[in-house]
Amino acid sequence: MINVTIWHEFRHEKINESVAELYPKGIHGRVKEFLESDDVKVTLASLDEPNQGISDELLESTDVLMWWGHIAHKEVSDELVSKIRDRVYSGMGFIAMHSAHHSKPFKTIVGTTGDLTWGRNQRAIVWNLCPTHPIAEGIPAHFELFEELYAEPFFIPKPDDLVFGTWYEDGNIFRGGATFTRGLGKIFYFHPGHETCTSFDNEYVQRILKNAVKWCSPIKVEDGFVINGCVKQIEEVFKK
Amino acid sequence: MINVTIWHEFRHEKINESVAELYPKGIHGRVKEFLESDDVKVTLASLDEPNQGISDELLESTDVLMWWGHIAHKEVSDELVSKIRDRVYSGMGFIAMHSAHHSKPFKTIVGTTGDLTWGRNQRAIVWNLCPTHPIAEGIPAHFELFEELYAEPFFIPKPDDLVFGTWYEDGNIFRGGATFTRGLGKIFYFHPGHETCTSFDNEYVQRILKNAVKWCSPIKVEDGFVINGCVKQIEEVFKK
Amino acid sequence: MINVTIWHEFRHEKINESVAELYPKGIHGRVKEFLESDDVKVTLASLDEPNQGISDELLESTDVLMWWGHIAHKEVSDELVSKIRDRVYSGMGFIAMHSAHHSKPFKTIVGTTGDLTWGRNQRAIVWNLCPTHPIAEGIPAHFELFEELYAEPFFIPKPDDLVFGTWYEDGNIFRGGATFTRGLGKIFYFHPGHETCTSFDNEYVQRILKNAVKWCSPIKVEDGFVINGCVKQIEEVFKK
Amino acid sequence: MINVTIWHEFRHEKINESVAELYPKGIHGRVKEFLESDDVKVTLASLDEPNQGISDELLESTDVLMWWGHIAHKEVSDELVSKIRDRVYSGMGFIAMHSAHHSKPFKTIVGTTGDLTWGRNQRAIVWNLCPTHPIAEGIPAHFELFEELYAEPFFIPKPDDLVFGTWYEDGNIFRGGATFTRGLGKIFYFHPGHETCTSFDNEYVQRILKNAVKWCSPIKVEDGFVINGCVKQIEEVFKK
Repeated sequence: MINVTIWHEFRHEKINESVAELYPKGIHGRVKEFLESDDVKVTLASLDEPNQGISDELLESTDVLMWWGHIAHKEVSDELVSKIRDRVYSGMGFIAMHSAHHSKPFKTIVGTTGDLTWGRNQRAIVWNLCPTHPIAEGIPAHFELFEELYAEPFFIPKPDDLVFGTWYEDGNIFRGGATFTRGLGKIFYFHPGHETCTSFDNEYVQRILKNAVKWCSPIKVEDGFVINGCVKQIEEVFKK
Repeated sequence: MINVTIWHEFRHEKINESVAELYPKGIHGRVKEFLESDDVKVTLASLDEPNQGISDELLESTDVLMWWGHIAHKEVSDELVSKIRDRVYSGMGFIAMHSAHHSKPFKTIVGTTGDLTWGRNQRAIVWNLCPTHPIAEGIPAHFELFEELYAEPFFIPKPDDLVFGTWYEDGNIFRGGATFTRGLGKIFYFHPGHETCTSFDNEYVQRILKNAVKWCSPIKVEDGFVINGCVKQIEEVFKK
Repeated sequence: MINVTIWHEFRHEKINESVAELYPKGIHGRVKEFLESDDVKVTLASLDEPNQGISDELLESTDVLMWWGHIAHKEVSDELVSKIRDRVYSGMGFIAMHSAHHSKPFKTIVGTTGDLTWGRNQRAIVWNLCPTHPIAEGIPAHFELFEELYAEPFFIPKPDDLVFGTWYEDGNIFRGGATFTRGLGKIFYFHPGHETCTSFDNEYVQRILKNAVKWCSPIKVEDGFVINGCVKQIEEVFKK
Repeated sequence: MINVTIWHEFRHEKINESVAELYPKGIHGRVKEFLESDDVKVTLASLDEPNQGISDELLESTDVLMWWGHIAHKEVSDELVSKIRDRVYSGMGFIAMHSAHHSKPFKTIVGTTGDLTWGRNQRAIVWNLCPTHPIAEGIPAHFELFEELYAEPFFIPKPDDLVFGTWYEDGNIFRGGATFTRGLGKIFYFHPGHETCTSFDNEYVQRILKNAVKWCSPIKVEDGFVINGCVKQIEEVFKK
């Protein structure tokens, strides 16, 4: 059983009627619908809840944290961001969806400004650049979306694997599906999911996120990997 | 079910009594013993059999080809090597064990001279450099072997992932567990397994090879990936 | 001084008048015009010359070999291909231009079928995905071409660096500017340069090829790197 | 001209007589001695100076920042760390020396806990794993040091290039010379340089750091790369 927490800023739905109509249960609620299964248990969390939705207990029991934020990145507390980063470095998976490229956790975890070029919603074609990657399982060479333009230059670190690349009508391309490893944690960024688009209804977007949850799940830590242990050891020595 | 073929040059056992005593069923027979399971079916093949052990039918039905060769690399026919390379590029996994770093298939598939530094059998410590990799599942931070020295400089292409690094008593280190992707095929090189050593009895070596077989298994090819198709298409056009 | 040899199949110009008009000195002659400088000496070579244009002496004195082939890939002798591969593994740079993705040397050196999707000449936009790479020096975030469509799926090994990605009008994208290392040799594939297009007149294509020549130049080999030495050492031992 | 700033915690020299004897001008002063040249101008900076040694003006005019810290990591202000990170993402090079693996800037810039295994000073052999890398220019296949043990598991992100690997007498190995790219900034971590060792007198350590300064120098930013621009653009839009 994989414990997934889907964190959603959950603001657009409250201030924009058309978004509320598209996502009556919120974007996190929509993702939960296709993600939950016998093997995946989903907890929903959002910014305006106590602890900004993520208590220490929830964080500790989460295997994969999925993140969607857009207009309220700055409201997320630095303390929570540090806790999330430390938990990822200890093995928790992290999936940054769409505008989470600019979220504090993603930027802090992988080390990036998250800056990119953006533009109007338009025809987009996602190309499968790494068919041997577990996240690409079941995905054809290409599939089509109608999405907000997120494009190069994208100032991410060189990805471990560039799984998907996206073509846009306006002449742009985007390294929009990329994996990273930080500490013992596996991270996946995937660009579809604008609040005024319906990409989460696309069967391939759903399949990719399902695959990503599986791929991001924490490994069992074996002997000799003392997580956050060296720091303590060194500090103790110098304290003497 | 994963169909594994273990190809072995199978010469040392016939000309060297001490090797024959260590490996009464041959090195391939020894590997089969710990590899075969409900999910893995193993076929043995060796150089002196018809078709040098690998008929077209066997090659076509093999999911993962494991290779051990040492003193007879040159006897392997170029035609067979080309067939193996094409099959890997179409998705078959390939595991090069020990001295297969200099085998024709490994050199041809990944693009390398395979050159390295070698020396006497000695104390060796394998370090797990990539605990998040599926091939490292269940492997502690380090384990010990008594092995032939294979060491840097090792003229391999930059690996996709450097999973294991090995320390040697004599002052050497080795990028001895490394993955590569070529076409749709996944490749793993792993250095233990000298004919006068007993590394295949080591529980971690066994676990790593089991993991590698699983990791190297072919993916299901989805729509739009025409294997070896573009070549034909272009040729047909120019033939007009 | 960098010694560059530009090898050209040199057939289209002889059988197609419009190509001959575009490239009166041949494609290799055109590339020479903008490449040659105080620091770069260019030698031209082509398929129908003795030794298929590349004598052992020329190969030995070449620092960077640039390759353009299309309809006559199969005529290049396997013996020459092996010599080129060995020379690259010993440090010579190799630049595969346009349709050289399917040339024997490129396929053999990096380990690929070279297969890709291709289509009609059209509007193409090259995006600079790695502005920190020496090959991207002086190149803006994007520039435009009119080129033959070469696109994904492209069955290359995971590149060391993906320097450029190309957008096409028809909905395709392409990892069209990619670096590889094999042995001591540095390799660059770059897609512009179809025989019916004028991409070699583009200032950025010229700059990229100039940068690539510099980047691909051989390193000075230091103590301890015995090129093609381990093979001999091992063979000698077994000969005893 | 490359403007290098060497930042040093500069505490061991003040509290430990033997370190003061080894490094009468401080570790930063020692590094300056061999680094400064007609092409490289060096400024020294240390923790107990105003602005913790790094004013905004100095930071802005620094091309490559070198960092040595050990017992006072926590005293470095978070504000300064953020400024350094942003400057690196905008193109400034960063070289983390020895115990700077645990410094706030290194951890924040690349995204790591910096945790590793450490032990007593001992015989160490540095192996050149990437002779084609500019940082390895002039470096033989291996050279010897007497150094503090810094070893695996080392929880760094997968490096862009693993340039050096180190062997230790005690049975350990270390990915001790590694490059990273973050934003437009190039980063190099290199392990030698313990305060009770004399590795900075080693000709190869000196050469590697000289090479690294050159390699880490900022690129000239071309049209279309709006540094830290996308953030503002998006914010402005949402402010409307």
